[in-house]
Amino acid sequence: MLDVCLLGTGGMMPMPDRWLSAVLLRTGGHTYLIDCGEGTQISWKRSGWGFTQTTGIILTHRHADHTAGLPGILYTIAHSMRTDPVSIYGPFGTEPLVDALRYIVPRLPYEVNVKELFNGDCVALPGELEMRALEVSHQVPCLAYSFTLRRSREFQREVAEELDVPVEHWRALKSGQDVTFNGRTVAAEEVLGPPRPGIKVSMVTDTRPTSELPRFVHGSDLLICEGMYGTEEERERADERGHMVFPEAAEIARRGDVKKLWLTHFSPALQDPEEHLEEARRVFPETYIGVAHETLTIPFPDEPDEGDGGT
Amino acid sequence: MLDVCLLGTGGMMPMPDRWLSAVLLRTGGHTYLIDCGEGTQISWKRSGWGFTQTTGIILTHRHADHTAGLPGILYTIAHSMRTDPVSIYGPFGTEPLVDALRYIVPRLPYEVNVKELFNGDCVALPGELEMRALEVSHQVPCLAYSFTLRRSREFQREVAEELDVPVEHWRALKSGQDVTFNGRTVAAEEVLGPPRPGIKVSMVTDTRPTSELPRFVHGSDLLICEGMYGTEEERERADERGHMVFPEAAEIARRGDVKKLWLTHFSPALQDPEEHLEEARRVFPETYIGVAHETLTIPFPDEPDEGDGGT
Repeated sequence: MLDVCLLGTGGMMPMPDRWLSAVLLRTGGHTYLIDCGEGTQISWKRSGWGFTQTTGIILTHRHADHTAGLPGILYTIAHSMRTDPVSIYGPFGTEPLVDALRYIVPRLPYEVNVKELFNGDCVALPGELEMRALEVSHQVPCLAYSFTLRRSREFQREVAEELDVPVEHWRALKSGQDVTFNGRTVAAEEVLGPPRPGIKVSMVTDTRPTSELPRFVHGSDLLICEGMYGTEEERERADERGHMVFPEAAEIARRGDVKKLWLTHFSPALQDPEEHLEEARRVFPETYIGVAHETLTIPFPDEPDEGDGGT
Repeated sequence: MLDVCLLGTGGMMPMPDRWLSAVLLRTGGHTYLIDCGEGTQISWKRSGWGFTQTTGIILTHRHADHTAGLPGILYTIAHSMRTDPVSIYGPFGTEPLVDALRYIVPRLPYEVNVKELFNGDCVALPGELEMRALEVSHQVPCLAYSFTLRRSREFQREVAEELDVPVEHWRALKSGQDVTFNGRTVAAEEVLGPPRPGIKVSMVTDTRPTSELPRFVHGSDLLICEGMYGTEEERERADERGHMVFPEAAEIARRGDVKKLWLTHFSPALQDPEEHLEEARRVFPETYIGVAHETLTIPFPDEPDEGDGGT
């Protein structure tokens, strides 16, 4: 299963009643943060999720509302007693950005590895998470991300027993290796069930809609997408500034056939995003206004849901 | 009069229930911010004080809990429509620090001037505010500051009338210039009252107590001083880390003969600073635990108090 926590829903600048847009993903003992504006670490502390297991920090782009909290988060991770390396991923320009911001946190008790990603890159993250990057359309290099938690194929114990495979070989078979014993070989293929669908979460901010986005987010269990402005009437402003209005985000969700859409990254001028929800729902009914500290536990399709619900 | 607002009381890292230590000063249409850790701009917004009149940002030292909020604050000041220059003051090393942090806010609609200060420097700030810097004892170059709002001498209208000074010359006399009319000269000295005491506020963080501090803060109407740890029992830890315990801050207040002490910059481990207040009050009775958004309006001694009280 994959846990998702929305840490905030604001764009441009943090407000007293709205943290900046950022997301935590957690699976298999690894936590990933997507974007870290000013105050994200405070919202993170309020969420109750720990810092020690932070394996990666993923940046969509270099704008301050997505990056200014990086020094503080690196410092707080240090104080969580982490000593394992932390990787920072982001678009072209992430290396000098991290170098600059680390001016005030030069010494850390763990290694920081920065990796710049480009359009189409795919990274196998610890925790069986596959991250893909798509170049999107903002004022500066910017990436959308999809995260897929692969589901291993089921080990068919009864088949292994029928084939008289000794128990000490089961682990190898489970991991996909063929095994040889008593002069005969059993292929993993023989004892593993059919491929099973994984869990997919996509994060799209900041950008205009692009033609590739529906396919990129296709089938996501959850799409978290920017909606800087509420209504179609503001599309011109959104276009000028490289953002979306709610119905545009909903259209990506609809065409991408995702299960659920959380809107985020609201303009400070957008005081009550709920006012414009219906307009988006006419395009894609499963649209929700993101809420800070909303947590969703997404089980595998054949796994019982132990989550706390979310929307 | 001088308005003071404490924006937070935390040290080391921002916490969900405690903003980082920072102070706003306001006089004569100019606002000054002292220190800006992560989240300071959010607390500032919550205070209701505007950003447009921000003439200066004053940094005590380069540690992240005093500086990481700088990019966000520069950005928010830009959005407040300010076009007048903003000066940033701080100890040795402030120039490269600001250069590094401005990596994510390279373009601003106003000029940013950085001025590094050294022990004993005195700066005349717009708003008739005189700022003095004292080198203190922390792990990195660090300055304590005092701010004195000078009180102009009273213009004795009745004396000017007795001397038959035409009204059009009063303004010059008020500003301290001698005037000549009808072939005779009247000295400003003749019509101005005796010197009047000003208002003094001092800010001391982060540092061990130093021998110069009591004289430096002497006579302050308000001393805002760090108290990272509560009790004498923690003095060894405070000493190791370049901080103070409450009674040490109170001793500086007592020896400096200040009127009031606000403690700030509490360790995240110090959950209830009130618990240790009595120990500090035994040294200096006018000691108070700082409270975020506490505002004090300090009138000149001969000016009626229009403030909203504070502690």
